[in-house]
Amino acid sequence: MKLFNKVAIIGVGLIGGSLALAIKRKRLANTLIGISRQRKTLILARKLRAVDVASQDLNIIKDADLIILATPVHTILKIAKNISRLVKPGAIVSDVGSTKQEIVRHLSKLFPNYVGSHPLTGSEKRGVINADARMFNGSLCILTPTVSTDKQSVIKISRLWNLLGARVVHLKPSLHDSVLSFVSHMPHLVAFSLVGSVPKKYLRFATSGFKDTTRIASSDAALWKDIFISNRKSLLKALGTFKHRLSEIESAISKKDAKGLEGILRKAKKTRDSLK
Amino acid sequence: MKLFNKVAIIGVGLIGGSLALAIKRKRLANTLIGISRQRKTLILARKLRAVDVASQDLNIIKDADLIILATPVHTILKIAKNISRLVKPGAIVSDVGSTKQEIVRHLSKLFPNYVGSHPLTGSEKRGVINADARMFNGSLCILTPTVSTDKQSVIKISRLWNLLGARVVHLKPSLHDSVLSFVSHMPHLVAFSLVGSVPKKYLRFATSGFKDTTRIASSDAALWKDIFISNRKSLLKALGTFKHRLSEIESAISKKDAKGLEGILRKAKKTRDSLK
Repeated sequence: MKLFNKVAIIGVGLIGGSLALAIKRKRLANTLIGISRQRKTLILARKLRAVDVASQDLNIIKDADLIILATPVHTILKIAKNISRLVKPGAIVSDVGSTKQEIVRHLSKLFPNYVGSHPLTGSEKRGVINADARMFNGSLCILTPTVSTDKQSVIKISRLWNLLGARVVHLKPSLHDSVLSFVSHMPHLVAFSLVGSVPKKYLRFATSGFKDTTRIASSDAALWKDIFISNRKSLLKALGTFKHRLSEIESAISKKDAKGLEGILRKAKKTRDSLK
Repeated sequence: MKLFNKVAIIGVGLIGGSLALAIKRKRLANTLIGISRQRKTLILARKLRAVDVASQDLNIIKDADLIILATPVHTILKIAKNISRLVKPGAIVSDVGSTKQEIVRHLSKLFPNYVGSHPLTGSEKRGVINADARMFNGSLCILTPTVSTDKQSVIKISRLWNLLGARVVHLKPSLHDSVLSFVSHMPHLVAFSLVGSVPKKYLRFATSGFKDTTRIASSDAALWKDIFISNRKSLLKALGTFKHRLSEIESAISKKDAKGLEGILRKAKKTRDSLK
């Protein structure tokens, strides 16, 4: 079933590449166009059969009826401006950015049929070389329509994600950014800080616990710098909560308050145990 | 090859149980005695063939030529006092506690042939039901002899760990506690704090990154309360370093210092990538 005639994905990395592969695998488009600044990426995307047409030129999107921006947050904002006059009337524009308030504010002004989305998947790996057509299977995808978002476009984008195997949840952009600051952005910030704290000569003693806790510190620095700055308001608030919890534990340890400390740890363990 | 005639393991949980299974599998003792306060644990340990003799009575250790304390840190200190008159002359005493300064200080006074050890392995699971004879295979085991530790006892304990598949490294108790505060205790403290920070209603959006980063917050609360309090001096120092790193990132985000922020993240990523 062809949902779209021409789909253009701008940014053919881990998520953009997986999206391209998944859309082709499910035959949801007649033509899949991949756009990247890097020739190497485009050659690889063609080899992996992730795209039908590969181009470095943004002008190629002018016939597309769905355009998905899949670059780092900062670049999404820049490219959106550059393509605003190229998008044909009626074409749907979406993105897969990890923050939504800033992006939705700008892109909904530029495109009448814009729908913000954020598939909660991925890994610390990067690049189309790690793309996986089943990336979205069983995952959660957050859409962030506002009161002014075109209803038909939301239905079509929901359908796309459903067909790729994702459950769709609608959240306001501000709530999305608050939720993600707690469940994703702050854990990344903490992991980067943890790795940065350990004296180099101690690293040979790193345990499996340390490795799990800091795995996401292997994530792409440029990508995460963008996310942290774009979502700084929510993130700094979440960080405040985290530092408060840290202080509670620190204070119980300082006071050798064994009972109080065990209570805090027990509560956290119970919460963590409740996650599958 | 029998390294010991009778080995007594006090505390038959995840580590004590694995140690018992491993020693029996390698036939390093003629008799393996398991001691626990809980009848249930002893019945299970017998069923799993982790021990030859199971007892709730500490008096059973009086014939043992190796006694290993494998209970939580606080209990190690208590039991050590209780058994100090039961240990036969020449018997080696060891422990597998996660902190070493406090334990070595007390136990080396009580037992002439005491050698502190800490196998860097385990998981967030607990109990003899999760014990694994291969737990120590390929792992690192830290021994913490001091200038007054009996050399022959150190050689024998090293040999035991080597035969169980562990590489042995010697560290001073104070250095052990400093290293572990950074690579294990602080990551646990951070994971407990992270889980405790997230509003309950946001948990359904927990990503795989969040789950990895907080996996160790499922660890046993009583065990970790002991470790945090026993190693509080080193741990609070490590926590100071962590909070400093956290502030650096926080400040770069607040100032929208994209370049500075990317530099910090890139450095952390490089370090994390260097760990296998």
